[in-house]
Amino acid sequence: MKDQLTAQNSKSKIENRKSQIPATPEPPYYAVIFTSVRTDVDDNYDDMAARMVELASEQDGFLGIEHARDNIGITISYWRDEESIRRWKDHAEHRIAQRNGYEKWYSSFATRVCKVERQNLKL
Amino acid sequence: MKDQLTAQNSKSKIENRKSQIPATPEPPYYAVIFTSVRTDVDDNYDDMAARMVELASEQDGFLGIEHARDNIGITISYWRDEESIRRWKDHAEHRIAQRNGYEKWYSSFATRVCKVERQNLKL
Repeated sequence: MKDQLTAQNSKSKIENRKSQIPATPEPPYYAVIFTSVRTDVDDNYDDMAARMVELASEQDGFLGIEHARDNIGITISYWRDEESIRRWKDHAEHRIAQRNGYEKWYSSFATRVCKVERQNLKL
Repeated sequence: MKDQLTAQNSKSKIENRKSQIPATPEPPYYAVIFTSVRTDVDDNYDDMAARMVELASEQDGFLGIEHARDNIGITISYWRDEESIRRWKDHAEHRIAQRNGYEKWYSSFATRVCKVERQNLKL
């Protein structure tokens, strides 16, 4: 389990990626908004979170990701179409992370799947 | 300007609200994802941000708001329909805040308007 979820990138590379706003293409495309409140359980949460960012970014149809956490955590991943969201949701390693999230890492959460209709970027 | 943007709620009340995930209604409804990177300019930024949360929550069609900031800031406001988003965008006090944001508070930002098509809430 631990091996499966160990982050393969250095933390600084992940932090670097997280600090940028992705230059998404012209809409329409899709967004998955994942909002969460953490429990007090650590159990390699940071490794899992970093690994999921890494893994998501390798999937077909992935367009970018944004993340911030203070009182709540918000992670938004952007996708080309609904099919790429479905494949990512069903990815074996991601399913393990989702189950662990529901069972121990999150006291509450919301997943919202959205169609991005327009955007205004100043990057 | 300062008077206009002074937060009327105590900071603790705002923090309280921000820590919750809103119980949004059944989709479809709309989300405005605002992602930003701050400049080093302070100039009452926190007062303005708190005031905008307060003001948005009073608008017709407002459904909830989520916010987190670490390397980047993410604020997602949820709305009943596109018309309520348009009215909020054009609200006089909000327009002043937007202009100040573009001119001094944000080095980069993205606004994305989305239609929420489905959700999974565990609140």
